[in-house]
Amino acid sequence: MTQRRIYLPEDRMPKAWYNVVADLPWPPPPPLNPANLQPLPPQALEAIFPKALIAQEMCADRWVEIPEEIRKILGLWRPTPLVRALSLEEHLKTPARIYYKNESVSPPGSHKPNTAIAQAWYNKQEGFKRIATETGAGQWGSALAFAGCLLGLEIKVYMVRVSFEQKPYRKHLMHTWGAEVVPSPSPDTEAGRQILARDPDTSGSLGIAISEAVEDAATREDTNYSLGSVLNHVLLHQTVEGLEAKEQLDMIGERLPNMVIGCCGGGSNFAGMALPFVKDKLDGKDISLLGVEPTACPTMTRGEYRYDFGDTAQKTPLVKMHTLGHSFVPPPVHAGGLRYHGMAPLVSLLIDKKVIDTAAYHQTEVFEAALTFARTEGIIPAPETSHAIKALIDNAIRCRETNSEEVLLLNFSGHGHFDLASYDLYLSGQLMDYEFPQEAIAKAMAAVPKVDA
Amino acid sequence: MTQRRIYLPEDRMPKAWYNVVADLPWPPPPPLNPANLQPLPPQALEAIFPKALIAQEMCADRWVEIPEEIRKILGLWRPTPLVRALSLEEHLKTPARIYYKNESVSPPGSHKPNTAIAQAWYNKQEGFKRIATETGAGQWGSALAFAGCLLGLEIKVYMVRVSFEQKPYRKHLMHTWGAEVVPSPSPDTEAGRQILARDPDTSGSLGIAISEAVEDAATREDTNYSLGSVLNHVLLHQTVEGLEAKEQLDMIGERLPNMVIGCCGGGSNFAGMALPFVKDKLDGKDISLLGVEPTACPTMTRGEYRYDFGDTAQKTPLVKMHTLGHSFVPPPVHAGGLRYHGMAPLVSLLIDKKVIDTAAYHQTEVFEAALTFARTEGIIPAPETSHAIKALIDNAIRCRETNSEEVLLLNFSGHGHFDLASYDLYLSGQLMDYEFPQEAIAKAMAAVPKVDA
Repeated sequence: MTQRRIYLPEDRMPKAWYNVVADLPWPPPPPLNPANLQPLPPQALEAIFPKALIAQEMCADRWVEIPEEIRKILGLWRPTPLVRALSLEEHLKTPARIYYKNESVSPPGSHKPNTAIAQAWYNKQEGFKRIATETGAGQWGSALAFAGCLLGLEIKVYMVRVSFEQKPYRKHLMHTWGAEVVPSPSPDTEAGRQILARDPDTSGSLGIAISEAVEDAATREDTNYSLGSVLNHVLLHQTVEGLEAKEQLDMIGERLPNMVIGCCGGGSNFAGMALPFVKDKLDGKDISLLGVEPTACPTMTRGEYRYDFGDTAQKTPLVKMHTLGHSFVPPPVHAGGLRYHGMAPLVSLLIDKKVIDTAAYHQTEVFEAALTFARTEGIIPAPETSHAIKALIDNAIRCRETNSEEVLLLNFSGHGHFDLASYDLYLSGQLMDYEFPQEAIAKAMAAVPKVDA
Repeated sequence: MTQRRIYLPEDRMPKAWYNVVADLPWPPPPPLNPANLQPLPPQALEAIFPKALIAQEMCADRWVEIPEEIRKILGLWRPTPLVRALSLEEHLKTPARIYYKNESVSPPGSHKPNTAIAQAWYNKQEGFKRIATETGAGQWGSALAFAGCLLGLEIKVYMVRVSFEQKPYRKHLMHTWGAEVVPSPSPDTEAGRQILARDPDTSGSLGIAISEAVEDAATREDTNYSLGSVLNHVLLHQTVEGLEAKEQLDMIGERLPNMVIGCCGGGSNFAGMALPFVKDKLDGKDISLLGVEPTACPTMTRGEYRYDFGDTAQKTPLVKMHTLGHSFVPPPVHAGGLRYHGMAPLVSLLIDKKVIDTAAYHQTEVFEAALTFARTEGIIPAPETSHAIKALIDNAIRCRETNSEEVLLLNFSGHGHFDLASYDLYLSGQLMDYEFPQEAIAKAMAAVPKVDA
């Protein structure tokens, strides 16, 4: 009987995060101050981030030790199982060996708490009592609520209003862990009040919610801001995924994967799995690192690699990344976590250097793939994760057609328990695809600042 | 570092179910034909059950082999982890060692698929194409939908109308696995049509839904009926829980538990964990087997041990069990899975013989305990499971006060991802308790047939 689940013993959970920057031949372009286009000094971030996280953001060391107390909390659900997808393989009649790293076993149901716990811990260490953040569909907000609950920090979540109303379960989840959640735009911030005055019926956006959370953090002594993806330190915290997966493959005598596949919104879950394999790839190993996104928000496949703002309201530094323009509002695909105009700078750099490959899919074909997974492996994937599953299935079929015994490794970033309404829309034929939003992107790209870097 | 999760290797998943009847000094009272009060001949059940399950229902052997194909499917999520609740222990400052068996890791999120897979498999073996069943809150319906999906059987679920409307996510879950779900009463059965004609706005009840599913199964050649608790063969299939837990405690050199705690609706999740410890208890070991129920539906603590019908419409045989009367409609507590007037006959016999202990709690104190669990161990328990958690916490505190290093074993029967609206009601102070429904029970008990057995 082939073993389905590979469990790493708890005492073999990684003791350090892996920083890919140390192994790259290309220095990452620095974030810039939009006022003078000069590299941003670290102190500029101290109004909203603790010093330890700023240091990690700028860090050049290969390994960053994970404090014992963080490891203890991660131990509530880590190491996560690596699972051989035997039923899916059988269904697809593929000679490929498929493994998925099940990050959905965390209490909030995704990879997000890997960094939420770390960020909350460092904030607490430096004496902050409260963290403000934004959330779209609610995966990040619930992860930070969970972290705040375990560490005794107050959490305030600005949740995009349309999600606040449409996804009550994620809001309940945040309440259960004791966080305060308000629909954004809210009357609690100057940014929110201004927008409400102009447009009281606005459905909100991630860009607006970021502005509110940043304002909250910048204007309160006891409060910092926290971001769930994109930044270097977030990707760093997620590398436990790939480090564990490597050990687990090694435990059963499996070779390096031929493909590592993950979905990309801001890029952190994919990067957490893929970055620990970058050195292998640079050393000439046959590995494709594949990031997958929606056709409706094609940041990696159709965006430009250049300096842009991280938020709509232009409150962030300029970062060099693949972007569709900071003012681009993606169509309302159900994979809310993939609706971001930009991409993690580290992922973007590696795409530019052809180390990372990319693919984009429409949402109906993505839900079809998700259903195949749910009806073979049992677990119901989040719409975000389902993008990676579509690519996985396509490649497993390619392996069948070419009779290739490849090893395919998927990052199963989250479950779809709170997204079942989307599944029902798909099943009843009411889910639609969106054309490539060419005009909207062209308009947004025209508003991207011209920076010569 | 104390190990949190104890994983049983996959090849050590139990190869046989344990039948406690073989170890009991008391023969279980047989089910009776209500028409003549004579023991029911097995053939009487063939209109709605496959022969193999009827044989298991009447079986006297100690061990019943689990077919390899069933074990293979159970292997999608079994063996389930046994978890040391270190964070809860620390929070409660208890010297007790607390373990919980995490049955919520199954794709439908509870222990229910342990029997759903087995029942679907035996039905398929005997050539049936379709299974009809009822569901209240939806845990059982989604487990059978999952099983039908994996085994290629058509599943029709009659879902109590009020739940169909209030719990859309469980309905979506059943759809995702390909089942047909209708609100009950439905126009699809004679029983449903009659009730709709009388009362078109009825919110439905479990009793009505059972009547519809049984009628569906009895009137179609290709269709059988399936029940998710109460019956001997259902309890038998659930014994994998306790058998695995024993092996897992043994793996880490832990002794037998002093207490085994589970919640009781029909009794199957608790029995699955507790029955494998009955022989130890009969042999004089110091073990309390504690079944926990809501004060609002106090079958074990306030019901009488006598023959009664399993359903409201009196379509089932008479079974000897703790009952509140087959016409009793419990108050609408949020633990929908515990709203049943009867109790598994095997559990009832063992309560009567003082082998099994019982306790009952109000729902607000139960949600308070659930929140303590969610905010320490992270996982959010189902309202049903939370009843057992309340008893667990009370006993962990007792251990603190008496300085007793007891071993407490909880069956974590399911997660509360689809019950978060109830948590939000609790947190906003809107959840209420129900008085002990003395008058309603007295009235229902008056309608229980007088059987001298």
